[in-house]
Amino acid sequence: MNGAETVLRTLLNNGVDVCFANPGTSEMQFVAALDDHRAMRGVLCLFEGVATGAADGYARMSGRPAATLLHLGPGLANGLANLHNARRAHAPVVNIVGDHAHSHKRLDSPLESDIDAVAATVSSWVRRPTTSSDIGRDTAEAVAAALSAGAAGAPDRSHTGTSGAISTLIMAADLSWEEGTPPAPHLPPAPLRSVPRADLDAIAAVIAGPEPVALLIDGAGLSEPGLQAATRIQKATGAAVFCPTWPARIRRGAGIPAIEPLGYRAEAVGQQLAGTKNLVLVGAREPVASFAYPGRPGLLTPPGTNVHHFVPDSGFDVVEALTDLADIVAPGSLATLPVTDPLPDIVDEPLRTENWAQIIGALLPHEAIIVDESITEGMNTLVPATANSAPHDALGLTGLAIGQGIPVAVGAAIACPERPVVCLQADGSALYTISGLWTQARENLNVTTVLLNNRSYAVLRAELDRVGGNQAGPAANALFDLSRPDIDFTAVATGMGVTATRATSTTELAEQFSTALAAPGPHLIEAVLQPV
Amino acid sequence: MNGAETVLRTLLNNGVDVCFANPGTSEMQFVAALDDHRAMRGVLCLFEGVATGAADGYARMSGRPAATLLHLGPGLANGLANLHNARRAHAPVVNIVGDHAHSHKRLDSPLESDIDAVAATVSSWVRRPTTSSDIGRDTAEAVAAALSAGAAGAPDRSHTGTSGAISTLIMAADLSWEEGTPPAPHLPPAPLRSVPRADLDAIAAVIAGPEPVALLIDGAGLSEPGLQAATRIQKATGAAVFCPTWPARIRRGAGIPAIEPLGYRAEAVGQQLAGTKNLVLVGAREPVASFAYPGRPGLLTPPGTNVHHFVPDSGFDVVEALTDLADIVAPGSLATLPVTDPLPDIVDEPLRTENWAQIIGALLPHEAIIVDESITEGMNTLVPATANSAPHDALGLTGLAIGQGIPVAVGAAIACPERPVVCLQADGSALYTISGLWTQARENLNVTTVLLNNRSYAVLRAELDRVGGNQAGPAANALFDLSRPDIDFTAVATGMGVTATRATSTTELAEQFSTALAAPGPHLIEAVLQPV
Repeated sequence: MNGAETVLRTLLNNGVDVCFANPGTSEMQFVAALDDHRAMRGVLCLFEGVATGAADGYARMSGRPAATLLHLGPGLANGLANLHNARRAHAPVVNIVGDHAHSHKRLDSPLESDIDAVAATVSSWVRRPTTSSDIGRDTAEAVAAALSAGAAGAPDRSHTGTSGAISTLIMAADLSWEEGTPPAPHLPPAPLRSVPRADLDAIAAVIAGPEPVALLIDGAGLSEPGLQAATRIQKATGAAVFCPTWPARIRRGAGIPAIEPLGYRAEAVGQQLAGTKNLVLVGAREPVASFAYPGRPGLLTPPGTNVHHFVPDSGFDVVEALTDLADIVAPGSLATLPVTDPLPDIVDEPLRTENWAQIIGALLPHEAIIVDESITEGMNTLVPATANSAPHDALGLTGLAIGQGIPVAVGAAIACPERPVVCLQADGSALYTISGLWTQARENLNVTTVLLNNRSYAVLRAELDRVGGNQAGPAANALFDLSRPDIDFTAVATGMGVTATRATSTTELAEQFSTALAAPGPHLIEAVLQPV
Repeated sequence: MNGAETVLRTLLNNGVDVCFANPGTSEMQFVAALDDHRAMRGVLCLFEGVATGAADGYARMSGRPAATLLHLGPGLANGLANLHNARRAHAPVVNIVGDHAHSHKRLDSPLESDIDAVAATVSSWVRRPTTSSDIGRDTAEAVAAALSAGAAGAPDRSHTGTSGAISTLIMAADLSWEEGTPPAPHLPPAPLRSVPRADLDAIAAVIAGPEPVALLIDGAGLSEPGLQAATRIQKATGAAVFCPTWPARIRRGAGIPAIEPLGYRAEAVGQQLAGTKNLVLVGAREPVASFAYPGRPGLLTPPGTNVHHFVPDSGFDVVEALTDLADIVAPGSLATLPVTDPLPDIVDEPLRTENWAQIIGALLPHEAIIVDESITEGMNTLVPATANSAPHDALGLTGLAIGQGIPVAVGAAIACPERPVVCLQADGSALYTISGLWTQARENLNVTTVLLNNRSYAVLRAELDRVGGNQAGPAANALFDLSRPDIDFTAVATGMGVTATRATSTTELAEQFSTALAAPGPHLIEAVLQPV
């Protein structure tokens, strides 16, 4: 058994049995070992950003880390943007990054670079085994660290799927090819911590008090049990309840207590939180604007609001805390389930920002997983359009690094092969990791991508105005414009092996969406929208 | 004038007038300013790795830095792999990376990350202006630092196009939108240094001595004057003369002194350098293997060889040193121009590794720029096949981070609009930065991409064996295999707006290559090869 096998078998011992791989020479032993350890599923990705985004999506849906297999510093760098999103999602991910052999490092060969420095920018845990005897232990610790917030230690992992972190294990090639040591056994991660009783009582008193209260809930609090507890609190106390604009994972749809997302724009949040005197953070961080704008505050909490850090955003059992709080302020109550409104009829008209999401909402299959990188096109339309849809989970763009959608869909589909994945993908963002479509085809994943083509970086047009830029002239506009030439996403997808069609009207989208969902394997529908 | 305009006008004052951009909110003022400063050409790239690779290609061909415009840490990370290649090419590049406003940094908003740490891994110069009064000076210094090896200070810049470095200027958004200060004037970079006379004499004595000598030449030494001096030395002294496998830029073709590249594999280099007692490095680094392999040395110089660090790989005038050396060891001599052999006739047969390059060689147009990311397919075939082609320049994969070809072709075509660019692009590598095809279409660049489709990561199949991996089984083989499904690159290219055809035989390739070169704008020919 060589060192690479020690890594592989230790991963398996610790419950990691999927590896999203874009390997190179320094990872060849790991690749070679896959045939002797078929319990590890190797999934080839043709760009590292696909591998890391897929690991994120897998973790959000399974609560378990996948491994990524990346080649040296440039390979890690190519995967960094989606690791940034995974970090913001608290998704557990274990990166295995190959490095040159120890004897080779000092030669500064062409691919040499500072892997450790790049890894440290997204990883809570970075380590290089220095001798063979370190490999098993370090690999087990990498997995435990990725789950350090305790996902695997919780009794029901499905509620805590987004409570983790990024670990990066850097494996020198010589350690991989030399004789290894026995794999390490399972190393239990730290369990989720409970909120102290005194904190529960203190917050209960705030909520029961006379001043207006808003709860901001994130993480596992957005699972169905968390939402049920939230609605009990809301009904009994009149507290407002919010979630972030794009949570890592949220349960939504008919029969599930609805929760209002904070708006993407600071002005919207200002209206939502107006009058709030106490903001209670439940597995959430204090809301901040995505960007600063001249003369506007970055912190979105209204001045004079008391901010209560009730449950930290990592490492604590959010569902337990919410349920305990509900039992204090609303003992014996049951969750109020919303009345499900009938979905609107589909009216045949050209596709535009205001109507595309209604089609998705009307036809969303039972237990779908929505991967939402719709950005401008879905910012104000998707949540209302899917409020009465069949029950589903939605995965959001946590770190705002675009190019997440297609890869996260890959990972979600591998984690949940029995569930349909619906990827709502903006056009500009799609191109960062477009080769993820090929992996969807290779693995025959049940992913339906609705490619929202408005032929622009629409969000930037709006941003230019907001930051006080001059009126955009033709030179500036050219940098937001994805036409000249128009991108034919059906051709691109077909080239990657994914069946693709184009819809320009609501009825075309409805028909193509239904057809795609009925057939196995990946599909892409290019929804051509009127430019925003 | 706001701070972004100060940056832009200082760049123009310092000769930087092309900006490869993938901007976001924090770069909006720079974008807005483009309309008032049309001397700056903004080129939209749909992925940051395209922007940075294009800046590399532009610098290699013009000797001048382009700016890149990148969005925060994830944007820089997406561009890092091609900055790695640019660094290895000694290409001058000036990155302008937007950051959050100072007031926003402490809020740890979703896109916050450690830009400085990522930048430092590839940049010789990283700085953030801290007040408005810094902006002009820092921008001018960024350009001067990128040219620190003196490209602009040399009398003829075209010979020193690859003697530079990476600068990264991190601009907080508030500095961009607040009132700026006047732009800084031109700041001359440090001129190239001359090799001391004593060093010239010492090396001349070595070369004239009785022991076998080999010169390893890189950088500007691979320009036509450098090669002419090298051939004078070779003829007069019998010294062997080599260049790296894939130099940043080399002049080749009929009538140009040929130079033998070191092989990619260590075994080949061992044969080439066998018997050498003195290795003279001329603008080159000591040759090392790309990767370590079990039981094989990483340093490729044979044991017992004296290595002479004659001209460093950066900051020195390599052409002057070579010419001075030739004048000492071969005074009054002229360069020996090679006899040009007739190009072979084209025989109609299926395309395979052994014949595709001959078609390119036979039909290569005058003053073409070859961008070579052919990897396995071109490793042993391209140089001989193009030795007697029309005179051309070839740009190699300097840092071995794949995904360089399509972007470097963008930059080379923008630097040299009058020259045809021929991009020889491996299939697996193409997918990392495939959206560069769209930029070729948007800018109507004269780039003909020959997409060498062997439907595998062929180089990895060979590497697995070399590192001593087990015989690859089906699970391992699946990670090298780019079929299931086959990628249809003509569809992908068409989707990106590039005219595309497919060739499976030598005559088809010849016909399509000629047709593509005769028509303006970008073309892609998918050359379907027998798998290696």
